[in-house]
Amino acid sequence: MRTLKFTLAYDGTNYVGWQRQINGVSIQQVLEEAFVPLLKPGMSMPAIASAGRTDAGVHALGQVASLRVELDLAPDAIWRALNVRLPTDIRVVEVTDMPPGFHARFDARGKSYRYRLATGPIVPPFERWFVWHVPQRCDVDAMRRGAAVLVGRHDFASFQARGSTTIDTARTIRTLTIDTCDGGIVIEVEGDGFLRHMVRTIVGSLVDIGSGTHPPGWMCEVLRARDRHAAGQTAPAGGLTLVSVSY
Amino acid sequence: MRTLKFTLAYDGTNYVGWQRQINGVSIQQVLEEAFVPLLKPGMSMPAIASAGRTDAGVHALGQVASLRVELDLAPDAIWRALNVRLPTDIRVVEVTDMPPGFHARFDARGKSYRYRLATGPIVPPFERWFVWHVPQRCDVDAMRRGAAVLVGRHDFASFQARGSTTIDTARTIRTLTIDTCDGGIVIEVEGDGFLRHMVRTIVGSLVDIGSGTHPPGWMCEVLRARDRHAAGQTAPAGGLTLVSVSY
Repeated sequence: MRTLKFTLAYDGTNYVGWQRQINGVSIQQVLEEAFVPLLKPGMSMPAIASAGRTDAGVHALGQVASLRVELDLAPDAIWRALNVRLPTDIRVVEVTDMPPGFHARFDARGKSYRYRLATGPIVPPFERWFVWHVPQRCDVDAMRRGAAVLVGRHDFASFQARGSTTIDTARTIRTLTIDTCDGGIVIEVEGDGFLRHMVRTIVGSLVDIGSGTHPPGWMCEVLRARDRHAAGQTAPAGGLTLVSVSY
Repeated sequence: MRTLKFTLAYDGTNYVGWQRQINGVSIQQVLEEAFVPLLKPGMSMPAIASAGRTDAGVHALGQVASLRVELDLAPDAIWRALNVRLPTDIRVVEVTDMPPGFHARFDARGKSYRYRLATGPIVPPFERWFVWHVPQRCDVDAMRRGAAVLVGRHDFASFQARGSTTIDTARTIRTLTIDTCDGGIVIEVEGDGFLRHMVRTIVGSLVDIGSGTHPPGWMCEVLRARDRHAAGQTAPAGGLTLVSVSY
């Protein structure tokens, strides 16, 4: 029995997210179906686990997945066979053998996400699935002051999706940077783990600060409230990319 | 009667090209149909002319189009009305009033194109419609030596699509640069005008030099032959973007 690690890049636009769902096609399903022809005859396909269950429309440059499987192929041959079978919006960047027991989710020590805002009067057509269009005023300095409040270990209950059942909502954000680029703003966040919708709710709240709806100091109140109603809007899925997972 | 100039950006993936065709949806058709509701009742829609008839799958950041029309709306209101009606893969960047007689094609003095090659082992999913995947060896210095041959005023008959009826095939390439970037190569070319498929045949020939199929000096023979059979392959449409048109 081998334990394989996959690094994956995908355009999440046409998928219901990482996890198998009855209402549409998921990344997990497409990846598992591409793997089936590599199995020995009669073997059933084991589930592929991912570091994080990206939502519908969320993208990845460095998602990590793991699989325990019996297989004789070399990692490079698996990489090649999967990329031939997969649609071009899902690519296997790398396949490696790992020590027994490695698990993409349970062993992850950190994740890094990027969120892109388009701030010009129009959304460039090439980028339309990968940005959130925010053409109103966006005060980057105010956003940075609001972001600074979130860095460190905090209870992020206010930033968790309504209806989530996660009880321990303490997480550590190690870095949260906001930079301007040609035509937009790039928000990068790195931490030990993220609650459901946490990055998108942080981004939505930062945009509320940037637009002047709330002052930077409002972020302290949001954090203290431990209540999703206190935070700002949930930013759309398309602007979000899982950049990397650390182990 | 007013003369309007439009600057357009589009993702050409889902279109048969700029020009109206019976076998599919063109950029021109979609733009004209979006304009119709702005016309006074009973007026018929005049044709919109473009600086260059981009082929199926070719993109634009700064295509220019012109239109002679009777209309009372301010340029900014036209800009807004068109962008509301257009699909998100076509955007009007700017609308301006021009002196009578301005024509997007006949008055164009130069065009600038960009071609992107992805040279890594996989094509990043976000860029899959905007690059040509060339994972084999690509000797950028050799490509630059081949490209240098093409700069200046030459008869580019060897680089014109088969079956073209253009008789005067002399054109001036003012600059032709080849730069490496993260994961690929960017080729930028600027000149007074381009024959059908000329940029794509130049790129295909440069890739033949980069891969070692031909030495850089071969480009002199191609140019001298004035015969499409002498040049290399036609690079795929998806890698090509019309960046700007000068007047």
